[in-house]
Amino acid sequence: MENAFADRITDVPRSFIREILKVTIDASIISFAGGLPNRLYFPVQGLQQAAHDVFAEAGADALQYANTEGFPGLRQWIADRYRQKEGLDIPIEDILITTGSQQGLDLLGKTFLNEGDDLVIEEPGYLGAIQAFALYRPRFHPVPVAEGGMDIGALTRVMEERRPKLLYTVTNFQNPCGISYSDDNRRAVAELVRGTGCLIIQDDPYGDLRFTGSRRLSFKRLLPAQTVLLGSFSKTVAPSLRIGWLVAPPPIMDKLVIAKQAADLHTNALAQRILHRFLTDNDLDAHIATIIRAYGRQKEAMIAAIRDHFPAGVQCTDPEGGMFLWVTLPEGMSSMALFDAAIRKKVAFVPGTPFYVDRKDSNTLRLNFSCSDEPTIVEGIRRLGTSIKELS
Amino acid sequence: MENAFADRITDVPRSFIREILKVTIDASIISFAGGLPNRLYFPVQGLQQAAHDVFAEAGADALQYANTEGFPGLRQWIADRYRQKEGLDIPIEDILITTGSQQGLDLLGKTFLNEGDDLVIEEPGYLGAIQAFALYRPRFHPVPVAEGGMDIGALTRVMEERRPKLLYTVTNFQNPCGISYSDDNRRAVAELVRGTGCLIIQDDPYGDLRFTGSRRLSFKRLLPAQTVLLGSFSKTVAPSLRIGWLVAPPPIMDKLVIAKQAADLHTNALAQRILHRFLTDNDLDAHIATIIRAYGRQKEAMIAAIRDHFPAGVQCTDPEGGMFLWVTLPEGMSSMALFDAAIRKKVAFVPGTPFYVDRKDSNTLRLNFSCSDEPTIVEGIRRLGTSIKELS
Repeated sequence: MENAFADRITDVPRSFIREILKVTIDASIISFAGGLPNRLYFPVQGLQQAAHDVFAEAGADALQYANTEGFPGLRQWIADRYRQKEGLDIPIEDILITTGSQQGLDLLGKTFLNEGDDLVIEEPGYLGAIQAFALYRPRFHPVPVAEGGMDIGALTRVMEERRPKLLYTVTNFQNPCGISYSDDNRRAVAELVRGTGCLIIQDDPYGDLRFTGSRRLSFKRLLPAQTVLLGSFSKTVAPSLRIGWLVAPPPIMDKLVIAKQAADLHTNALAQRILHRFLTDNDLDAHIATIIRAYGRQKEAMIAAIRDHFPAGVQCTDPEGGMFLWVTLPEGMSSMALFDAAIRKKVAFVPGTPFYVDRKDSNTLRLNFSCSDEPTIVEGIRRLGTSIKELS
Repeated sequence: MENAFADRITDVPRSFIREILKVTIDASIISFAGGLPNRLYFPVQGLQQAAHDVFAEAGADALQYANTEGFPGLRQWIADRYRQKEGLDIPIEDILITTGSQQGLDLLGKTFLNEGDDLVIEEPGYLGAIQAFALYRPRFHPVPVAEGGMDIGALTRVMEERRPKLLYTVTNFQNPCGISYSDDNRRAVAELVRGTGCLIIQDDPYGDLRFTGSRRLSFKRLLPAQTVLLGSFSKTVAPSLRIGWLVAPPPIMDKLVIAKQAADLHTNALAQRILHRFLTDNDLDAHIATIIRAYGRQKEAMIAAIRDHFPAGVQCTDPEGGMFLWVTLPEGMSSMALFDAAIRKKVAFVPGTPFYVDRKDSNTLRLNFSCSDEPTIVEGIRRLGTSIKELS
């Protein structure tokens, strides 16, 4: 039988990163390719105790079907944290618990995107967002990002020439680049979007993982009626739980709840209760401080090793937080060719190519620093430096 | 700001059942409206022990990102059960763990349905499937079902006049009717579909909850290359875990994995391990036997009370399993009007209307028997009988 798939699914290539990660299963390879939080810092004991307490106290209540919007206690905890950390007053009715923040992207695509609708994304941008949105077949309008934020000139042209429905941003320690938007850049973006039919999606999975500098302005403060926030517990607690959230004003939330119900009825309610119990009985900020100390040291080790081992002319970002930094090779050098050379030297990374909507090759690459200890980072960067020099 | 939603989301009405369930929060109302498994039979102790063991033995491994296809041990358990119960030989590569079987419906819609594609559904049919598929804007072709299965004449006409891509069936103890397809009916359906471009979706959340009779033929046996199976642990273990599965041959699975990855990366991996541990350390069939004994008695009580309290001319199905039965009122009597009258008598049900794609009213209704004990069932049916008589 011939399978007549929907057009949307035949457009999406199998993830290049999935293929890369298969190569890196070889234990002798030092991998900076993954995008995982470091398992050393998962709060195993705290979650185990929380699970025990939820079973003991809620019993069967924790095992029944639950409401689509999410466990009220967890939504209240999220609202309280926005108030405490960002001075944002968000009613719990505006908070939807999602099956990871990845699901938030799918629900937004489903709720907003007709085929051919205009969508602004960052270039380079988060691959998972490109994949989720691509299934709704929009026209992607990539706007370059660099340290400091979006290219305002390029964004101005897109906003003048198109009528984008959505503008997708990762404003803090962006994946893949590690860059952050300055407050001025955020204000400039907000002014360009204000009063248009465009909604800003501020995806912030890494925002709590700040090593240096201080918290920046939220689009939710600059442009509250036109901003949707996405959040995640994957990088601060544990990714396997698949618990994220989405903040949207009521007319949008109403549609998102319909989409969520059709997608999976509700997010795992036992896990929501366990997470809520963990957050109530433990100091998340103290836990995050432990993660930050490690990731911050690892980032410093990587930057120092890059200075020591990469040839002149190779640039890299110096993120204030998160899990990634971004390397720009000399003009004309192929990061795909470098990947093959580096694998022979037993070190892996993700070439920049998949983070662009429409490129076959690039001279950029993403390095993950959250998952390797400092000696491993130094050795991996030394190997990578040797590979770059051989290709030069 | 005006929100320009996608066309697909503006087509889907807010769930009528959600609105009904709000009415039934009043504790003095006897509700046959819900679709929940009975919380008395959730294996709280067994899952608590399984969670403890997973944390103790897998630790951080249970908290990291996991593969999109699902936890291999759980997929193997599902494959083994298909072999043991149905003699089906299904490689684990053909099994995808989904976030509830509801997600399976969304992934199939996303993978197969272009706008305007033809889709065969049961009439009356499962509301969650109608909602999930509606978001991909197919043309629905409802084919009547009754005790014994699908109306073969009506299906023959649809298969001749249209080229449906999908045929959605709940062959055992269907929601909403409680009917089952006979083996002959299954053979006839399979013959009509064989060799066409149509895929049969066999959704079987209730199949293990059989009170009487014996297991019927699977479409997977009759038409293996053209059948997708959906399964769920929601009715046999616990729904809050949101763990279901999907069985599909390789070329289809390849696309479904792409859609799954874009939807939520993977299903809660901690919950998958806890469930797998529970299934390994406990006798699921013994647990199911307990559920069946209770639901079977409750169904008998409901049928007997209907005979005692409903006027002549009211028909009902007599399911061999599951959680629902279906009542047909005398021609011309409105189940929506009956709902209002019944609420005044403090008893609730779901009118048949939302289970049809295109009706504003109907003389049918769905009664749930899994969630009420026998005295409550008798009293509720007595009240409902009084309401019917008053309306006659």
